[in-house]
Amino acid sequence: MIAQEFIEANEQYAANFTKPKINARGVIVVTCMDPRIHPYEQLGLKIGEAAIVRNAGGSAEDALNSILVAQYAFNTKHIAIVHHTDCGMTKFTTEWLRNKIKEANPGRDDVAKTVDGIDFHNFTDVEASVQRDLKYLVENPLVVKGSKVTGWVYDVENGKISQVGDVIV
Amino acid sequence: MIAQEFIEANEQYAANFTKPKINARGVIVVTCMDPRIHPYEQLGLKIGEAAIVRNAGGSAEDALNSILVAQYAFNTKHIAIVHHTDCGMTKFTTEWLRNKIKEANPGRDDVAKTVDGIDFHNFTDVEASVQRDLKYLVENPLVVKGSKVTGWVYDVENGKISQVGDVIV
Repeated sequence: MIAQEFIEANEQYAANFTKPKINARGVIVVTCMDPRIHPYEQLGLKIGEAAIVRNAGGSAEDALNSILVAQYAFNTKHIAIVHHTDCGMTKFTTEWLRNKIKEANPGRDDVAKTVDGIDFHNFTDVEASVQRDLKYLVENPLVVKGSKVTGWVYDVENGKISQVGDVIV
Repeated sequence: MIAQEFIEANEQYAANFTKPKINARGVIVVTCMDPRIHPYEQLGLKIGEAAIVRNAGGSAEDALNSILVAQYAFNTKHIAIVHHTDCGMTKFTTEWLRNKIKEANPGRDDVAKTVDGIDFHNFTDVEASVQRDLKYLVENPLVVKGSKVTGWVYDVENGKISQVGDVIV
C-alpha cells in the first residue's frame, strides 16, 4: 500500500525535520516527471534552493502558468529547461494518446472535443525539443523581459548534463 | 553563475552515476514547485520509483496532461495529490497576477486576452484545495476509471504529511 508507505517514510523524515533555510538561488527548473530524473542530485540543488516544475517531457509551454507565478509573484529571473534522453514523450504521438482516451470513452463527443484540444508536446529529438522551448519562452510576451533562459539535456545512460542553450528574453 | 554551478555539481553526480533500477511503484505524485518541497525525502521515494509532477500549488487541473500521459502511456493507476501549508498560491489572487502581467505589457490587448483566460488555481484553505482537486479528478471523464486518488497536506513547519482523502475514480 503506497499510502501506508508514504506515512511510514514521512514519520522518519518528520522525526529529523529541520526547517530548510530559504536561500533560493532565483532559478526555476523545468524538467520531466520521469522517475529517472532527480533534479536535486543531478543539478546539485538542496531543498530551499530552487522552484522545481515537472511535467511530461519538461515542456515550457505546459509549465507556463507556474513560470509566470515564479516570475511575477516570486521574482525569479532564471528559467532552466532540462529535457532528457530516452524520454517517454518520444515513444508515442499526441494523436496516439488522443485516440487511447477516445477509445476509453466511446460515444463521448465532449471528451473527444476536449482531447483534440490538448497538445501533449511530444518530440522526437531531445535537443530540438529544448530549443523549441527556448524559442517559445523568448517569443512569449508574458515572460518577464530580461529573464535568462538556459537549456539542458540530461543523459539517462551516464548521468551527465549538457548545456544546449543560453538566451535572454 | 547558476549554469556553472549546475555543471560542476553534475560532474560529481555523473562520476558516481549508476543507472537507477526502474521499479516504479505505479504512482504519480502531483505536488508544488515550492523550494521547501522535496518529495523524495518527504515521501520516502527513491529515484526510479515514481513519476513526479510539480507546478504552482500542486494543481491537479494544471497537471492533467501529465496525468493522462502517466495513465494511458505508462499505466499508472495511483495519483497522489500533495499540497502544503503556507503555499505561495494562498498569497495572491489570480486577478492580482493577471493585472501584474497586463501592467508589464501596456497596450497589448492580445496579452490581456491570453492572461484573462488563465486560471492560476489560487486557494485559501489547503485542505479544501486538495479536496477540490480530488473532486476534479473523480469527475473528469478523461481520467482512467478505477484509478485510486489520495490527497495529502504537507506541513512546512514540522515536515509532517497528513492524509486528507482517498477516493476511487
